[in-house]
Amino acid sequence: MCAAPAAELAITLSVLAEAPDAAAAQVVPSAPVGDHRDVEAVRAFARECDVVTFDHEHVPAEVLAALEADGVVMHPTPAALVFAQDKIAMRHRLTEIDVACPAWAQARTAQDVEEFAAQVGWPLIAKTPRGGYDGKGVRLVSSPAELDDWLEQAARDAAEGGPLADGILLEEKVDFTRELAVLVARSPSDQAAAWPVVETVQTDGICTQVLAPAPDLDPHLAAVATEAGLRIAENLGVTGVFAVEMFEVRDPETGSPSYVVNELAMRPHNSGHWSMDGAVTGQFEQHLRAVLDLPLGAPGPREPYTVMANVLGGDYPELYPAYRHLMARDPALKVHLYGKDVRPGRKIGHVNVSGADLEDLRERAGHAADYLAGAVTE
Amino acid sequence: MCAAPAAELAITLSVLAEAPDAAAAQVVPSAPVGDHRDVEAVRAFARECDVVTFDHEHVPAEVLAALEADGVVMHPTPAALVFAQDKIAMRHRLTEIDVACPAWAQARTAQDVEEFAAQVGWPLIAKTPRGGYDGKGVRLVSSPAELDDWLEQAARDAAEGGPLADGILLEEKVDFTRELAVLVARSPSDQAAAWPVVETVQTDGICTQVLAPAPDLDPHLAAVATEAGLRIAENLGVTGVFAVEMFEVRDPETGSPSYVVNELAMRPHNSGHWSMDGAVTGQFEQHLRAVLDLPLGAPGPREPYTVMANVLGGDYPELYPAYRHLMARDPALKVHLYGKDVRPGRKIGHVNVSGADLEDLRERAGHAADYLAGAVTE
Repeated sequence: MCAAPAAELAITLSVLAEAPDAAAAQVVPSAPVGDHRDVEAVRAFARECDVVTFDHEHVPAEVLAALEADGVVMHPTPAALVFAQDKIAMRHRLTEIDVACPAWAQARTAQDVEEFAAQVGWPLIAKTPRGGYDGKGVRLVSSPAELDDWLEQAARDAAEGGPLADGILLEEKVDFTRELAVLVARSPSDQAAAWPVVETVQTDGICTQVLAPAPDLDPHLAAVATEAGLRIAENLGVTGVFAVEMFEVRDPETGSPSYVVNELAMRPHNSGHWSMDGAVTGQFEQHLRAVLDLPLGAPGPREPYTVMANVLGGDYPELYPAYRHLMARDPALKVHLYGKDVRPGRKIGHVNVSGADLEDLRERAGHAADYLAGAVTE
Repeated sequence: MCAAPAAELAITLSVLAEAPDAAAAQVVPSAPVGDHRDVEAVRAFARECDVVTFDHEHVPAEVLAALEADGVVMHPTPAALVFAQDKIAMRHRLTEIDVACPAWAQARTAQDVEEFAAQVGWPLIAKTPRGGYDGKGVRLVSSPAELDDWLEQAARDAAEGGPLADGILLEEKVDFTRELAVLVARSPSDQAAAWPVVETVQTDGICTQVLAPAPDLDPHLAAVATEAGLRIAENLGVTGVFAVEMFEVRDPETGSPSYVVNELAMRPHNSGHWSMDGAVTGQFEQHLRAVLDLPLGAPGPREPYTVMANVLGGDYPELYPAYRHLMARDPALKVHLYGKDVRPGRKIGHVNVSGADLEDLRERAGHAADYLAGAVTE
């Protein structure tokens, strides 16, 4: 999705593609094939680039170290990226800088789990610190026994090395009113810009819609949450686009709203796809500007609301008839397809629609996503 | 400029590129090199395409005929394209369908010129019917002697064939108040959509700014001009994006405004670049939708005004420092660069800026274009 703004800005992209027919290789002329876990392949690729950035956080530490030793300019830097790769490192750092987090603990044994549960009560949330994505690596548990496999692996990894070498992350189950996201961009020169705070609507652990800006958001919370996003970016040394997923919570006594941070993502993020059509500067343009240390673009909205709906793959592999139907049904719909093969539940695209009537926009975006997924047929 | 919307819509583009480093080849993975005048090169290219379209009108008739004989699907069709290639054919057809044109005549001799001048007065406008572009092939003349070379060539071409075989086109010099453009898209299924009528601001025969929509345009004229654009598109069988350049004129007695058609362009057009940021559907997305016979997108504006300013090459070949400065000066500016080498006077990009205050937008867009061209230094 960086290809479109790169073309407009006359920025030459090159993508290390996992296969010759990878989605990115379909739209970027320079797309050598290589595995992002193959140190030599990534080193050879990086030698041809002025700046290297990443489209996911799961870049192995040895690859990052090799690039760093070669003097490759990376944004975000490995030193920042670790806080998006390792949720325990993230919780430690956010707690140090007084960012509101759920109660949390690091657990290696069933006893650690019992002790934390005694503080926050059952059920609680357990997470593998590394490698989770879209609800994978996260469990809602009501007894230590439900974590036996992870704790056994943690014991092995502590001795032999592995993703659970530092144990697992436990968090209280937060009683939230809704989920928010703060999306910011920060450049190596320390310029930063924040888009309006959005609401992310989750269904079965997957984000299905984003409402931009978050409707009826308390203005003080909007300011505080945005400030937290900018402060985290600066403190962690983030460069590029950076997303902070938050829970909106209410003080049980005063009823006043506040946030706790759920997750970080150090890249253009699903919660920012609305900006591709709904903001003066979309997140992929902004990411390019940020990692190249160009001045950042204005992040303001173009219309009162933009609703983004994710298109998840359905049972029917051929999108074209549905897509043609939707274009006819709603000429103002902006359809974005990723050029990926359709698999049930896979994010294969998204739609944006902008205007003033939020309920109308939600109905239209939701219908379009359902129709493309085959969940509705008219 | 089709590359960006094609990527979003998962449409696979292929470009017949004039050189391996052509601007389009920098952003489209499939860009075989070939000359658009080479019949066999174009035939081989077209065999791999579902639909062929054109980024300029100067495709030789023998190339179009060969593709037609091969059964290649072309949009616009050669039958429509002739009216954008041949200004005499265009004037004949528009006159037949009662579209307002300047007084005009076809001239082969000095006597033809004298006779037309006797009707409309000196000076008058003379045009070569084929091959003109951006003021080339157009003369403002005050005597037949100023056309001697063209008339001599016309006499030769009449015998031997050539671009002036049908003579030259003469037109009255229209006393206009400003220049307007109507941009429409039409699909093979006869769906059509029109963007708001824009004002095109010319400097030395080159369009320097476009104001969208045309400020203070008489609503009746807006409707009549749009209807004319749609009617021409239908009557000429145009498919794809289509621009009608018009003069706004005033009835000397009633003062009421009306239009006369100046030129046609059968492709996405400079007068439509504002739509890339300022409209729900930009002209390059719409062109793809039209030539693929997909339902057309909404052409409405996203903000009250968008101003487009063309960036013309200056003496300084390196754009990057200027571009970085402008991004910092105006974070809401949308810069579009074409990846072309800088040559003085060449269109190498454009900028768009949207908002409610037209004078402010004109100042900002104009400054940005001047700065990139090196005409101002702060």
